[in-house]
This record gives sequence, C-alpha cells and structure tokens, in this order.
Amino acid sequence: MSRSINLAVIPGDGIGQEVVAEGLKVLSAVLPQDVKLETKEYDFGARRYHATGETLTDADLDALKRHDAILLGAIGDPSVPSGVLERGFLLKLRFAFDHHVNLRPSKLLPGVATPLAGQPEIDFVVVREGTEGPYTGNGGTIRKGTEHEIATEVSVNTAYGVERVVRDAFARAQARPRKKLTLVHKNNVLTFAGHLWTNVFNKVAEEYPEVTTDYIHVDAATIYLVTDPARFDVIVTDNLFGDIITDLAAAVSGGIGVAASGNINPGGEFPSMFEPVHGSAPDIAGQGKADPSATVLSVALLLRHLGYDAEADRIDAAVAADLTERSSLGARSTARIGDALAARVAG
Amino acid sequence: MSRSINLAVIPGDGIGQEVVAEGLKVLSAVLPQDVKLETKEYDFGARRYHATGETLTDADLDALKRHDAILLGAIGDPSVPSGVLERGFLLKLRFAFDHHVNLRPSKLLPGVATPLAGQPEIDFVVVREGTEGPYTGNGGTIRKGTEHEIATEVSVNTAYGVERVVRDAFARAQARPRKKLTLVHKNNVLTFAGHLWTNVFNKVAEEYPEVTTDYIHVDAATIYLVTDPARFDVIVTDNLFGDIITDLAAAVSGGIGVAASGNINPGGEFPSMFEPVHGSAPDIAGQGKADPSATVLSVALLLRHLGYDAEADRIDAAVAADLTERSSLGARSTARIGDALAARVAG
Ligand SMILES: CC(C)[C@H](C(=O)O)[C@@H](O)C(=O)O
Ligand SMILES: CC(C)[C@H](C(=O)O)[C@@H](O)C(=O)O
Repeated sequence: MSRSINLAVIPGDGIGQEVVAEGLKVLSAVLPQDVKLETKEYDFGARRYHATGETLTDADLDALKRHDAILLGAIGDPSVPSGVLERGFLLKLRFAFDHHVNLRPSKLLPGVATPLAGQPEIDFVVVREGTEGPYTGNGGTIRKGTEHEIATEVSVNTAYGVERVVRDAFARAQARPRKKLTLVHKNNVLTFAGHLWTNVFNKVAEEYPEVTTDYIHVDAATIYLVTDPARFDVIVTDNLFGDIITDLAAAVSGGIGVAASGNINPGGEFPSMFEPVHGSAPDIAGQGKADPSATVLSVALLLRHLGYDAEADRIDAAVAADLTERSSLGARSTARIGDALAARVAG
Repeated sequence: MSRSINLAVIPGDGIGQEVVAEGLKVLSAVLPQDVKLETKEYDFGARRYHATGETLTDADLDALKRHDAILLGAIGDPSVPSGVLERGFLLKLRFAFDHHVNLRPSKLLPGVATPLAGQPEIDFVVVREGTEGPYTGNGGTIRKGTEHEIATEVSVNTAYGVERVVRDAFARAQARPRKKLTLVHKNNVLTFAGHLWTNVFNKVAEEYPEVTTDYIHVDAATIYLVTDPARFDVIVTDNLFGDIITDLAAAVSGGIGVAASGNINPGGEFPSMFEPVHGSAPDIAGQGKADPSATVLSVALLLRHLGYDAEADRIDAAVAADLTERSSLGARSTARIGDALAARVAG
C-alpha cells in the first residue's frame, strides 16, 4: 500500500463546498502520521461554467487522471440549464474514467430517523452499473419543437459491461456474512436487455455456489424497500434502476444526509471518485446547515478503495456513534459535526 | 348514457380468478335495476398459452373491441417464461387499444396500515403514459449468448403521445380541489426525451393558469413518496417511471391489495381496461386469501369511465368504510370481503 494519497478535491456547487471541507477535516484526522496527504482543488461546477463555458475539458481529464482518487461535494445549480452539468461534468467523468461500479451502501443505524414505521433492519449495498444503460447519451430528437417531434433514448447493454459489474457484485456478496445477491431489472418488459442481464447473472452465479441469488422487478423492488428492506443484502442493477432505487434506499435508511457513494474503476486504470448521493441543495447552501456525514462516509469508501481499511472502519464507527447520539445533541452546524467526527476518529 | 354495459371479463391467472368474481359481485350489486349488465368471460393467460401457444390473437382483439369495457384480474404464471404474457398479452392489449392514459390513484384511508411512520396524508393520482417510452418493444440484440452480446432498448417519445397524456393530466388536476400537477422525469440525464416532456408540459401549462405545476426527477420522487407524499396531487410521467413509482405509491398507501388502475383510451375508440395493480400472486392463489379491494376499486374506475359516477362513488365509499373498520373485523376470505362490499353498495 502506498503511504501517500494524492487527492483531487472538487467542492463544486452549493453545499458541496461546506461538506467537502468537513470530509477533508476528518480525512486528515484519521490518517496516520506517516501517510502523506496531498490535495489539489478543482473549480468545476456552475461558477466555472458561467465564467468559461467549460464543464470538463480534455486537459482537466489529464490533470485528474494523475490523482489516486477524487473527492466530490456536489455539482449543480439552478442557474445552469438542466442537463448541462450532469451530462457535461458528472456523467462525462464517470464515462471517461470508466467508473462502471457505482457503489451505494445503505445502513440504518440505531436511533437514526427513518420515514418507515417500526425501525426495520436495513443493511445492504447497491452495486449500480455506471457506464451503460440509458445513461450513454445515445438517442436523439427529430422535428424538435414541432408537433411531430420524436425523441428517443437508447439503453445500451453489453455482455462485457454487464458481466464485469455482475462479477463485482458477486464478489461483494461472497464477502458479506449473508452472501445474498438480488438482481433488479424489468426483464418482463425490457426483454432484450433483461435477457442479457438475467443470463449473465445466472452464468456468473454458477461460480459462486455459496451466494444465494434471486431476481425481482424494479417496480416490486420499490415495494420491498419500504415493506421489507431486510430482505436485501447486495443488489446489482442497471444504471437507471440503480439511480432510482438508491435514492429510495437512502431515504429509508436515514436520508440523503448520510448516503455515500463511490464511482469506482475497480482495475485502477483511472482514479475512482467518491461523493455523497445528495445534490448541491442551493436552498440551504452557505448556511452551515448541511449534514457532512454523507461526504465523510464517502471518504471512508475512498479510504477502503485505497486499502486503508482500518481508517475507513474508524470513520464508519465515528459516524455511527455520532448519528446514534444525535437526537440528544441538539442542532449543530456543518462544521461542528465535522469537528465532532474528526475528534472521534483521532481519539 | 347507455343503460347497458357489455363487459369483457378476463379473470386470468392465480388470484385473478378469485378477485374478479368479487369485482363482478359488487358491480351487480351497485348497478340500478334498469341497467342491463352483460358479461362475457375470456380465458387469456397461462392456461390458454399452454393449451394453444396463443396469448392474444387478432380474432381476440376483434372480439374484445365490441365490449364497452374490460375487467381484468391478473395475468402471469411462473410456468410461462418471463415476458411472454407481459409482452404478448398485457402490453399488446394496451398498445392495440391505444390505452395511453394509465390511471393509478393512491389514497391512504384512515385506519389502513402503511409502512410509513406517522400515518401521512396521501391522496394523489398518477397519470402514467401507456403506449410509449421504453415499453414499445423497440430495440434488439446482436451476438446473443456470446461474450460480445449487445442489447438495446429504445424509449420512443412523440410530441403527439406526450401531449395527449399531459393534457389529460392537466384536465384531471384542474378538476381536483388542490389543482396541482407534478411532472416526473429524469430530464437532466435523458435529455432528448426529457426536453420533449418538459417543453410540452410547459406549453400546455399556459392553458391551465389555475393549475400549480412543478417538476421533480424520478429518483427524487421516490424520496418524496416516503418522506412527504402529501406534496403530490396529480403526477404525470412516462411509462417506465410510472410503472416504478405507482408500485411504490401503492405500497405506501395501503399496499397493492388496494391499488386500482385503469388503462384508458379517453376518446372511446377502443374499450378501456381496468385491473388491480397487483399480479397473479401464485403463492396465495386458490386459498381465498387475496384481497379483492383493488379489483373492486378498479370496477369503480370502470364505472366512472362509463359515466356511472354515483355508482362509482358508492363503491369507493364502501371500500373506504370496509378498510377503515378492517382492523376490528379479523381475517376474512376473499369472498367474505366481496360479500361485505356488495352488501354495503346495495344498502
Ligand atoms: C445528477 C445525476 C446525473 C446523477 C445520476 O442520475 O446518476 C444523480 O442522480 C446520482 O444518482 O448520482
Ligand atoms: C406486468 C407488467 C407488464 C406491468 C407493467 O410493467 O406495466 C405491471 O408491472 C404494471 O404496472 O401494470
């Protein structure tokens, strides 16, 4: 394991700035003395776009490529037309750096508020495909703006792309105590992609006899997520279904204030990127109201990805302890929560 | 209004048989003496498929076309490969009869169990597009079964198709006390279809100055459905997003045991079809355990569609009363619940 981390930091827009500061605070506090942490900040997001019209250039990609990992706050602002920063920055980066494993753990900690009655057990991880499906930007529009307009979106699914993410999910399921993997798709309607996903899933399953598998349609998955979330251990799914169910998963397991994610290139050809699931939340930006926990948990995913498992565990434990005690702590600012977490991981 | 109803009845598979019987029981009980009810049963579903290999022939469509409306129980059985009956019957019928308005109301009644804490107010209706999006069957597979397989699914969206369903949704919003309409899409990623939906929505909105409008992404919509479902009045959305969020909507507002739906051809060129949102539930079929409420509520949607508003209201009230008292009633079979509802609407 390298004893230095060369980190690209992208605070981004809105509360991104605030939560990333706390993520870095906790990262510095948790790292052993002998690990050299270097960070370089990048100004992507709405300001850069308004100033230069750029979202992410080839030169930017070259610069980012030299880092060990990327920590992102949030990108997006109402002043920028919908889609510009999403397609021009967030998705461009995921595709350019082949972030095909989009990892989103959900764990409901004791004492943490959930909209669900009866405080169910929730502890699963979604492995969302990150580089295919309807996210490829394939499709188009003809007769735009007329009453004869036709717009298409093409979901692209390859055996290559599906198999690698399915393998990643099986390996993760194998490494967890329950060893259970659920494929979520809509193979009764999207039969072309559905057959590919199902066949690849069943084929790889043969290599993991210890992993229990099942299949559920994405619509039914949303039902189980609110009526019986304990049934899930690891879920593997397509890019769009993963987008939808991970927001719901975050909502039921403590809210997007605590939902972390990793955009991972498992082979390490490109740096992986870690970010909270939440967005830039312009309505509360600059007020110290944002919960930095999701970013701090994303830092833990980042550390685990780089091989710093003990440090990642310490962050997870610190956030868990903080959340569990939160109801008795009263309102705290973004920075105070960061301070508390930094103190816990250092202690 | 015609004083006769010529109804096609498709019990289908599994619990479909049981719940449709109760739906018809309540229908007969609620109709005034002078309305002549004629029903003809059709044997679509797994048995017919196994016996003949047929799912829905041109002759079937001709026969169905002569009815005023269709009542469906559920179609689907594990003995039939996934997709065969869905694409070969359910979707084929929606497309053949141009059921472009897929109507799915959600109302949480007092006393009804919900997985959400705090018994929130839920009373909204989803207008799901029924004939476009990724449901068209466009797409394909090459190099099937090899490591080079590529499968595509094409979401097709037309100004014609989007505008008519958006208009239907605005008219419904206008007719409701809150007059609020939310567009649900993913226009920051699916930018081709997203722009079409957004532009058409904004254009039609100008004709409905009294209707308050907003937009949310489908992933965020799943969050609101569990944290703040009261924010919704009418939702309009695409075929796939509508499929997903209406299952979640059903789950939070009393479960799929009480979720009704209409596959509507508003112009009346073809008969509309009404069905519970739930499936054939083979695990509990034949045991008298299924809740017929969703089918009975679908009968109410059917009556309202045919202009029998007072009768529809009586059914809604009967189901509401039954559900509200249910916790004190103990377990009842499918038929006993049907009897109770029939008695209420007749009384
Ligand atoms: C902002 C958007 C492009 C993104 C996505 O759809 O993937 C977000 O919703 C997410 O889940 O990370
Ligand atoms: C069975 C399936 C084809 C159908 C759909 O996806 O529309 C069902 O899930 C529904 O919502 O009516």
